[in-house]
Amino acid sequence: MATSKTSREAHGWAARNSSGVLSPFSFARREVGDYDVSIKILYCGICHSDLHAVKDEVGMSVFPIVPGHEIVGEVVQVGSRVLNFGPGDMAGVSCFVDSCGHCDDCERNLECFCRGAVMTYCSTDRDGSTTYGGFSDHIVVDERFVLRIPDSLPLHSAAPLLCAGITVYSAMRYFGLDRPGLRLGVVGLGGLGHVAVRFAKALGVTVSVISTSPRKEKEAIELIGADSFILSTNEEQMKMENGSMDGIIDTVSAAHPVAPLIHLLKTDGKLVLVGPSKEPMEMPPISLIMGRKLVAGSRPGGMKETQEMLDFAAEHGITAEVEIIAMNYVNAALERLARGDVRYRFVIDVANTLKAS
Amino acid sequence: MATSKTSREAHGWAARNSSGVLSPFSFARREVGDYDVSIKILYCGICHSDLHAVKDEVGMSVFPIVPGHEIVGEVVQVGSRVLNFGPGDMAGVSCFVDSCGHCDDCERNLECFCRGAVMTYCSTDRDGSTTYGGFSDHIVVDERFVLRIPDSLPLHSAAPLLCAGITVYSAMRYFGLDRPGLRLGVVGLGGLGHVAVRFAKALGVTVSVISTSPRKEKEAIELIGADSFILSTNEEQMKMENGSMDGIIDTVSAAHPVAPLIHLLKTDGKLVLVGPSKEPMEMPPISLIMGRKLVAGSRPGGMKETQEMLDFAAEHGITAEVEIIAMNYVNAALERLARGDVRYRFVIDVANTLKAS
Repeated sequence: MATSKTSREAHGWAARNSSGVLSPFSFARREVGDYDVSIKILYCGICHSDLHAVKDEVGMSVFPIVPGHEIVGEVVQVGSRVLNFGPGDMAGVSCFVDSCGHCDDCERNLECFCRGAVMTYCSTDRDGSTTYGGFSDHIVVDERFVLRIPDSLPLHSAAPLLCAGITVYSAMRYFGLDRPGLRLGVVGLGGLGHVAVRFAKALGVTVSVISTSPRKEKEAIELIGADSFILSTNEEQMKMENGSMDGIIDTVSAAHPVAPLIHLLKTDGKLVLVGPSKEPMEMPPISLIMGRKLVAGSRPGGMKETQEMLDFAAEHGITAEVEIIAMNYVNAALERLARGDVRYRFVIDVANTLKAS
Repeated sequence: MATSKTSREAHGWAARNSSGVLSPFSFARREVGDYDVSIKILYCGICHSDLHAVKDEVGMSVFPIVPGHEIVGEVVQVGSRVLNFGPGDMAGVSCFVDSCGHCDDCERNLECFCRGAVMTYCSTDRDGSTTYGGFSDHIVVDERFVLRIPDSLPLHSAAPLLCAGITVYSAMRYFGLDRPGLRLGVVGLGGLGHVAVRFAKALGVTVSVISTSPRKEKEAIELIGADSFILSTNEEQMKMENGSMDGIIDTVSAAHPVAPLIHLLKTDGKLVLVGPSKEPMEMPPISLIMGRKLVAGSRPGGMKETQEMLDFAAEHGITAEVEIIAMNYVNAALERLARGDVRYRFVIDVANTLKAS
């Protein structure tokens, strides 16, 4: 069976310009090709990078944009050569929907770094069309970029694992911040931070949340499961914690000083940035040199690691705390997200609230 | 035999204030204790950090300062409990002369990071006295902090290995930039840079020197042994090399932009700073995040690794290019060092040119 070149109508919500306001939008998805899986979207998380994209804050947006790369849903159709999925399976789609398949990065299962990678939205697909994300009724994706959602994970709270979860999981794994006996700081208790605490705890790591908001202390410990809380505006407390941490996952994308975080690290400590700040950061080389410390960046891992993360989450009962919203609440949700007013991730109940326009 | 509490006269050259001008200076060294080795100093290298110290550029100097931590000489006396050295042995002293011996860092053979470490000069020794460095006739050091200079290494060109050599060797080893198949950039072709090229080549790494000075190209390749040369002021050439390097050892301590260096790195590339710049550096988080890159600092390794480095240098015939000077040329040498006019390391012929004042 040859890949069909026809297309089918899809419905979603799109931003038409950098006002970032979303409204109903009809567009075309390709027909299901030989290697494709078609997924009816049930839930889609709202990531901070969706906000950056619809407001064109990194200057790479191509409108209209249908955001959404924390997609879970039900497989409704598969191509003739699909091996690992069938109708009725619960499936996920993360930040990427294709890659070249043969570069160094692809060969290391790091499709996310491939220069030919196709992002889930706002990217040019192999057939020249523009990709559209998960704020929509269905998506058609090559099965190599489809994840299996383990049965035991509730779908709505699994969605944020597909970007927030894999981002922090991959950072901990790659930088070796994943063993009992280590002490980890997590800066920012938002969508990424709260799942970082949970993954770290499941890995046996001792975790301290580092935040500017004293009101987050109780919840960080009681609801999310952190071992302790450090108020980063309290200089005395920060000073007492100097040299105490093996690593820090910094999830804050707003500009903020990193020197005090570097001071919290032990010899050989690692500060891993996962919240892409647009502003250059001031880094004190001498602090790095004196303690052989490092500042690194990290982002969502490849498909193999993303599946491993989902399986690990299922095994350890790790889910995100979510606020489920209707599709037509999305603009209000984006505004609230911009001011940090969410505990801890918005997830759109797509299947029940998106109506064809 | 108890440790003697008497002391013996030593002669050297010291800076008396932050003018940084050195002049003859007499002081006391402790008598040789049970665990001590007394070394007649033959050669001492001049490190850039000696310059920082005598000019009090990091604000931690305590005058008078006798600089020098690239010390080689002949053992002339040992204490009753010394196991590994005897009179006539060729020995070296690096940046540290003591440490607590029981902290996490000491237990990992990283005495250099110990908070109780005693630096070779300008530091407070365990008996409360101030330490004085290698611009002097002899030094008394606990044997745990004495290195064995392999027979095949010429003493004068081995001296710079004790700081410059171990700094770059340790950086390559710790950050895994030490295997055939990897490509390494070395920024700056000075005291550290030129031995970095030689160690990297001996480790089978492909090495490119990155420099602002076109006049260094020929020598970088023909004398020092680099595979290629990149002129960092040539934007076109820098752009062509984007994404080509597994790691970069940056030896430049003057302020300079690091973003173009980060762009040279492949996915998972590592920029390791070993030249302690006083200025904060501007770092673009997004560049780190997109390629999971890191910026780290590194400094001279511990005693075990320093001995390993000396043995490796002997095995592979690695020495520094040096300009041997007399003690009374030291002020002129420091001035030349400040303006980068040295190929590639000044080494003082202490034994033949230092006269007791």
